[in-house]
Amino acid sequence: MEIKTVKKGQDYLGYLFIKSQMTKTATNGNRYFNMVLNDVNFDEIEGKKWDVKPGDEDLFTNGKLVKIKGKVQEFNNRLQLIVEKMRIIDESDDVSVDDYVETVPVGIEEMMGFVNDTIDDFTNDDIRTITNRIFNDKTENLVYFPAAKKHHHAIKGGLLYHLYTMLRIGKSLAGIYPFINKDLLYAGIILHDIGKVNEMVSDENGAVSDYTPEGKLLGHITQEIVELEIVGRELGTDAECIMLLKHMILSHHYQPEFGSPKRPMFPEAELLHHIDMIDARMFTMEKALDRVEPGKFTEQNWSLDGISLYRRSFE
Amino acid sequence: MEIKTVKKGQDYLGYLFIKSQMTKTATNGNRYFNMVLNDVNFDEIEGKKWDVKPGDEDLFTNGKLVKIKGKVQEFNNRLQLIVEKMRIIDESDDVSVDDYVETVPVGIEEMMGFVNDTIDDFTNDDIRTITNRIFNDKTENLVYFPAAKKHHHAIKGGLLYHLYTMLRIGKSLAGIYPFINKDLLYAGIILHDIGKVNEMVSDENGAVSDYTPEGKLLGHITQEIVELEIVGRELGTDAECIMLLKHMILSHHYQPEFGSPKRPMFPEAELLHHIDMIDARMFTMEKALDRVEPGKFTEQNWSLDGISLYRRSFE
Amino acid sequence: MEIKTVKKGQDYLGYLFIKSQMTKTATNGNRYFNMVLNDVNFDEIEGKKWDVKPGDEDLFTNGKLVKIKGKVQEFNNRLQLIVEKMRIIDESDDVSVDDYVETVPVGIEEMMGFVNDTIDDFTNDDIRTITNRIFNDKTENLVYFPAAKKHHHAIKGGLLYHLYTMLRIGKSLAGIYPFINKDLLYAGIILHDIGKVNEMVSDENGAVSDYTPEGKLLGHITQEIVELEIVGRELGTDAECIMLLKHMILSHHYQPEFGSPKRPMFPEAELLHHIDMIDARMFTMEKALDRVEPGKFTEQNWSLDGISLYRRSFE
Amino acid sequence: MEIKTVKKGQDYLGYLFIKSQMTKTATNGNRYFNMVLNDVNFDEIEGKKWDVKPGDEDLFTNGKLVKIKGKVQEFNNRLQLIVEKMRIIDESDDVSVDDYVETVPVGIEEMMGFVNDTIDDFTNDDIRTITNRIFNDKTENLVYFPAAKKHHHAIKGGLLYHLYTMLRIGKSLAGIYPFINKDLLYAGIILHDIGKVNEMVSDENGAVSDYTPEGKLLGHITQEIVELEIVGRELGTDAECIMLLKHMILSHHYQPEFGSPKRPMFPEAELLHHIDMIDARMFTMEKALDRVEPGKFTEQNWSLDGISLYRRSFE
Amino acid sequence: MEIKTVKKGQDYLGYLFIKSQMTKTATNGNRYFNMVLNDVNFDEIEGKKWDVKPGDEDLFTNGKLVKIKGKVQEFNNRLQLIVEKMRIIDESDDVSVDDYVETVPVGIEEMMGFVNDTIDDFTNDDIRTITNRIFNDKTENLVYFPAAKKHHHAIKGGLLYHLYTMLRIGKSLAGIYPFINKDLLYAGIILHDIGKVNEMVSDENGAVSDYTPEGKLLGHITQEIVELEIVGRELGTDAECIMLLKHMILSHHYQPEFGSPKRPMFPEAELLHHIDMIDARMFTMEKALDRVEPGKFTEQNWSLDGISLYRRSFE
Amino acid sequence: MEIKTVKKGQDYLGYLFIKSQMTKTATNGNRYFNMVLNDVNFDEIEGKKWDVKPGDEDLFTNGKLVKIKGKVQEFNNRLQLIVEKMRIIDESDDVSVDDYVETVPVGIEEMMGFVNDTIDDFTNDDIRTITNRIFNDKTENLVYFPAAKKHHHAIKGGLLYHLYTMLRIGKSLAGIYPFINKDLLYAGIILHDIGKVNEMVSDENGAVSDYTPEGKLLGHITQEIVELEIVGRELGTDAECIMLLKHMILSHHYQPEFGSPKRPMFPEAELLHHIDMIDARMFTMEKALDRVEPGKFTEQNWSLDGISLYRRSFE
Repeated sequence: MEIKTVKKGQDYLGYLFIKSQMTKTATNGNRYFNMVLNDVNFDEIEGKKWDVKPGDEDLFTNGKLVKIKGKVQEFNNRLQLIVEKMRIIDESDDVSVDDYVETVPVGIEEMMGFVNDTIDDFTNDDIRTITNRIFNDKTENLVYFPAAKKHHHAIKGGLLYHLYTMLRIGKSLAGIYPFINKDLLYAGIILHDIGKVNEMVSDENGAVSDYTPEGKLLGHITQEIVELEIVGRELGTDAECIMLLKHMILSHHYQPEFGSPKRPMFPEAELLHHIDMIDARMFTMEKALDRVEPGKFTEQNWSLDGISLYRRSFE
Repeated sequence: MEIKTVKKGQDYLGYLFIKSQMTKTATNGNRYFNMVLNDVNFDEIEGKKWDVKPGDEDLFTNGKLVKIKGKVQEFNNRLQLIVEKMRIIDESDDVSVDDYVETVPVGIEEMMGFVNDTIDDFTNDDIRTITNRIFNDKTENLVYFPAAKKHHHAIKGGLLYHLYTMLRIGKSLAGIYPFINKDLLYAGIILHDIGKVNEMVSDENGAVSDYTPEGKLLGHITQEIVELEIVGRELGTDAECIMLLKHMILSHHYQPEFGSPKRPMFPEAELLHHIDMIDARMFTMEKALDRVEPGKFTEQNWSLDGISLYRRSFE
Repeated sequence: MEIKTVKKGQDYLGYLFIKSQMTKTATNGNRYFNMVLNDVNFDEIEGKKWDVKPGDEDLFTNGKLVKIKGKVQEFNNRLQLIVEKMRIIDESDDVSVDDYVETVPVGIEEMMGFVNDTIDDFTNDDIRTITNRIFNDKTENLVYFPAAKKHHHAIKGGLLYHLYTMLRIGKSLAGIYPFINKDLLYAGIILHDIGKVNEMVSDENGAVSDYTPEGKLLGHITQEIVELEIVGRELGTDAECIMLLKHMILSHHYQPEFGSPKRPMFPEAELLHHIDMIDARMFTMEKALDRVEPGKFTEQNWSLDGISLYRRSFE
Repeated sequence: MEIKTVKKGQDYLGYLFIKSQMTKTATNGNRYFNMVLNDVNFDEIEGKKWDVKPGDEDLFTNGKLVKIKGKVQEFNNRLQLIVEKMRIIDESDDVSVDDYVETVPVGIEEMMGFVNDTIDDFTNDDIRTITNRIFNDKTENLVYFPAAKKHHHAIKGGLLYHLYTMLRIGKSLAGIYPFINKDLLYAGIILHDIGKVNEMVSDENGAVSDYTPEGKLLGHITQEIVELEIVGRELGTDAECIMLLKHMILSHHYQPEFGSPKRPMFPEAELLHHIDMIDARMFTMEKALDRVEPGKFTEQNWSLDGISLYRRSFE
Repeated sequence: MEIKTVKKGQDYLGYLFIKSQMTKTATNGNRYFNMVLNDVNFDEIEGKKWDVKPGDEDLFTNGKLVKIKGKVQEFNNRLQLIVEKMRIIDESDDVSVDDYVETVPVGIEEMMGFVNDTIDDFTNDDIRTITNRIFNDKTENLVYFPAAKKHHHAIKGGLLYHLYTMLRIGKSLAGIYPFINKDLLYAGIILHDIGKVNEMVSDENGAVSDYTPEGKLLGHITQEIVELEIVGRELGTDAECIMLLKHMILSHHYQPEFGSPKRPMFPEAELLHHIDMIDARMFTMEKALDRVEPGKFTEQNWSLDGISLYRRSFE
Repeated sequence: MEIKTVKKGQDYLGYLFIKSQMTKTATNGNRYFNMVLNDVNFDEIEGKKWDVKPGDEDLFTNGKLVKIKGKVQEFNNRLQLIVEKMRIIDESDDVSVDDYVETVPVGIEEMMGFVNDTIDDFTNDDIRTITNRIFNDKTENLVYFPAAKKHHHAIKGGLLYHLYTMLRIGKSLAGIYPFINKDLLYAGIILHDIGKVNEMVSDENGAVSDYTPEGKLLGHITQEIVELEIVGRELGTDAECIMLLKHMILSHHYQPEFGSPKRPMFPEAELLHHIDMIDARMFTMEKALDRVEPGKFTEQNWSLDGISLYRRSFE
């Protein structure tokens, strides 16, 4: 039963994924669930379950796939699913939770391999060693981490996919501008956002519920710079290499009001910023244009500073 | 005799290129030349020639290669060449004016061929026809036009070289983001700055003396949009194609304060901006870093918003 | 029956004008109308009509005057008219649709005459011919076009009235500053916003439902500059005249962030901006102050950057 | 002997006006004059007089017309007049100091009459009385005060001329927008800049040497608001009238960064700002365009935020 | 019965304070009360009373303590108290209205004494006399005036408490920077916000319902500057003292966009700004942190430009 | 012989301090010294010594006190000392280099003691240990380091004096706001600028010749955050303490455009910023006002955003 076709007043029976669940207490003391549920097409509907029993909230947590029987109602002009029955799927159900989690178009292993091959090719030993170490320390997280809470690449594996695509761009630009140091550029790409693993709290499906306290107080740029120094000292990395990598992290948002107190001061740092922007924008634009007909404009998109995109009417 | 080695008080004899010449009248009524002269390494020195005779100013114009005998003096802490004798080179001199004009590292014909091949490959007839027409109308100018008066690519052939390099970037990005319309992106790249041919007054060596009146009152963005419409109507180009190309021109500076009243509203327009920025910045940075030792910082660079660049000390 | 006196629960019978109508489909598949209706005083109420029959949506379109029987209800603290019966007026009804459309205080013909007389008086043949041509090409639209979707002069005929009043200001300023070229100033006034006819989609009652695609991608400033060039080439208009008129259009919003990439560079362009501002502001302020008692402040007015206006308590 | 034709090395004999004089002490203890001198065409030259005798500095003060014998020299690319002899003009000289001071094109008496007639016509007694009082308290200063130190109307009588021209504009706008209260608007025009009399130190030729301490610490806007309250209390002016006039003064620079902490909150205040801008800009533009040939651009003009103006080539 | 423990559907009986009351007319013509009510802990609930009788609205005004019988309902996810019975407290009720009004932690008399002692200690007679006069003219208002409508110190007596605490800071800074003139600094502190008494309309419980018309049109900075001049002239205060105090008032918001057209131009004015900021921020932060657990972040706080505060988890 | 009294043409004999020396090569190949010299009153004069001999440049370095015989000349309106003879002082000279270096008004030992006593009093062991360690690691540098290259406290010992005075302010504020954690606030004060020791290159007289490469690429804020983490890990400091101290460093410039990507998110961080501002401003203002007469304004001061300060005419 597809979310995009349900109507007010209709009975619902089908599998849904609990994208987020919050247990609330009504003023009469009863507890209920507020949920965001999605089907296999990633279409979403708000779900309510009244009179939650003790233990339910430990069972029906974010990231569970459930079978639901309920009724569709309208509230404040939006459809809502009032859950009558709900159970966790078991072996008897012929569904896989993986089909219900939006993810990236390239396999995790392929991307991991690509990044690791890139690192292995570095000619500068210091840069290779430290990049390898920090990247591989994060492997477990990179399997599912998104690149952002809301904006670009906010899906499972989005952070790794962002690094992977940026590396592909970096490699073509390095061919066009041979005075660039490839190791620096590629290391900067691989490490620039990796501090997000410590800035945000993501579940295994790439849904970010919040930022960490340190993430709020310092931010991933500062967090990653500190990590570079810690690991660099441990590995005995050349001081200039560490310094340049720290600068690339520090400056990659380009403008103070976006979090970079220093502007890029060498070409690899400059390129890193532009490659980051290109990939974030292309990802967001492709997704937004998918939801609109040729010859039409999208809604204002707040990940694009409020721009409405136009989808051309020809191929 | 190299400019970079001359000293105060020294006699000078050698070939120099008149990069710019202004005839001034002293308060005693005599006329003199104020010149910027460069040698074969593109190093520059200020030149003065007193008591100019009638006809001299029509002879010793910008872009002439001359043989000069004179004396080096210091004025206001800067060296100055006081010209005693000066004549235009003739067949007896074993020098070529082309060696004295800074130009781009790729041959004009090769770049022209590359752009034309790119256009020929467009699958969209409307975009191919109009791009071909406008580009080839400008061929004569593109042989020497710089991309700017002062900032990036301000050398002979710089505008064409900028388009050429941007096209190379565009082609790799089109491979990475296949939802992009290649014809639109490449046409946008080829046409985005071509209005500069009507905005600036350049001599055949790529030195811009001034902007045209229309350049000052309207700017190359507006000028090129108007041209697109004029030519599009003449050729009967599809209205949507024209509209999209006009938007790409209009938005490619990205921010209102840099001349773009509209932000990019589709992916090809967005990419155009970033590719433009990347190429402008890489060109400027490479040139600036050439003038400084490894491990050192450049002077503040006003084409880079006042940034001092750092040149890394390792390869 | 006046909208401003109806109360919750009351039956309604009377004539109303369909300012806008949108047909929507409920989740049960039934279609209904969402309408904005106004009475003869231009007071508005939201209208709903359930269970729309096939053909109804082609009949009850924007701009129709209808007789309605219904009931007033309250929803979300706002009154709403639930339509029970609705029919288009016919000859038996003693009402005129014109009385239900807000318009300007000067007759269209009188304003047209004034503008045309002004153009006829131009001493510069080039400016007269092109202004006459562009203005009269738009006559059909100017009969009803508003000057904006929401802000100033957003009523039927508002665009023409704006030009008309600005011309009156222009004429007195030309008397005070005789070094001004009257033809340029008046032509600039007449043409400065006329591109809005191609930027917005207005019905015959001056209600703007949307912007055109080209309006969104380029904006009326760019659109009008292109038109000036096209028509100017066709008429063989003097190149400097065209250039100056294009600059006036380009610069009349004064600041980049409001859409003008160039600042006014001659006095007529500078005056055009200020006259435009004065007339927009006076129109908006007069309307806003009409709705508040002497000695009181209006609500924050978002057409005036959020200012609350004070209405003086004396005459 | 005209300044604009003198040449380096030439002897000079003629009448010059001391626009400003500063006595300086050389490192050898001798005192000398640094002067700005202008001839009857208001063309200026820098003047130096060495070895000033005791008493000289009280004699040769700003605003004196003198006969000078000297020699023209060049220093730092600028001409300089080295004064050999200098005496104050007496009855034997057939020159008048008034011819050497740049002033406004309308007679002081005519302007005074126009303003006073305007005030006399006010129908609101409170506004008439207070405007009359404050304006006439300043009569002595208005005979010569400029409207600014450097920018617009920086000539003798410029402040009064600015008020006079603004009143003329105000009167035509009041005819076009009849809901405006004329008395308020005209009073606002007359009083808006009159605090400058207490903000700047001007000599009788309209040359401003400095700002007053209170001018620096508070500014003419705050100064005039205080005066309005003081005089209003003394005269028993209606409280609302005072309040509205104070608001008009407070808001007439429109934007906080230009000194107005409040934005105009009624139409007369809004108009005051625009009329002020129009007159300041037209005055500055007319002067700047006078110094350039038709078809040419002026230098960047810092009273116009750095704009170069274009002078049209046709009448 | 505590507001923080009531639940949907529950009956309510208890004492509540009418923080604000607005009488509205329903569409059926009946009138009802919209109220904000708080209990003795300053916890608030929205109250509704239907079918208000004539005279009720004069009885149940802001600032009354009432006994209420009613029922708790939920509307738009918020609890609401539907009043069935309501009466003003009388002698038989063992409650005091003072317990229901949030106020400052130091006694009014103690603060008044502290300020007056400070003024008495001024060594400069002019500054002492004028500060004493203006401060004591406001005594009646300072007993209850808050320092703001919404932001810092928006409670009964908040304005006086703000002055008091700032004076304590001022005294320690004067010890650290002995070149400071204490009288000026302390007078600036005492007077800087005292114009708010004329800018806002506060009831005796420190609740601000609105700004005065003059407050909206001029603001407390301008209002206080005018008062300083009026009183200073009356008292014959030294002109420089008045000028400096006016500058301190004018500049204490520091930036044009926050209402200060001049930046602080002497040390006492500079200090005044920072002391003001410190006390406003500390008050707001302490209050905000009280509402959150150690180790947690507060909601975004709009009195702190949207910052979420972190409460440390250790003492 | 005092610099402030020397005149053009005069012979000079006396002791001067070499504040900075640069060896340059003239165009004739000879080398000369460009120096800034100051006398015992810290008044400065530019010095030139022609025909420098081999070895001289290693002898006459920054920070040497020398006896000079020379001649005063004028160049470009400024006095210049042409050095004829120059020698390093020896035991026979009755002068001390310390008298020629501007320093702070409190003894280094006293300040060190005060800071160390403050640290010893911390009740939180983690904060005490890490603050003690980092502060005492910098002792050698703090003996002479200034707080800035040009702006506030740019004298020998200025950095320590800045910390010392800020601590004094911090202690009084902690008394006024008892909810503040004193250890955090004092540690923040002591550490906030200590990264400058790694950001700038200072000689032992507190003269900063340049920034370090890491200082340019990262800045003292980032540098100190990294150090906190390194030392904190080594000492096993509590993670929350480190996190809060890092946030205080990160946010103490308050605004992104001044280098703080995060705004202060707890009261101690907020206070740190204001205390820093107060002390920087008071130091700069006191110095600037010392150079001007009572009742006068200083030059525009670029360490104060271009403000001219007013010095009051009364005590």
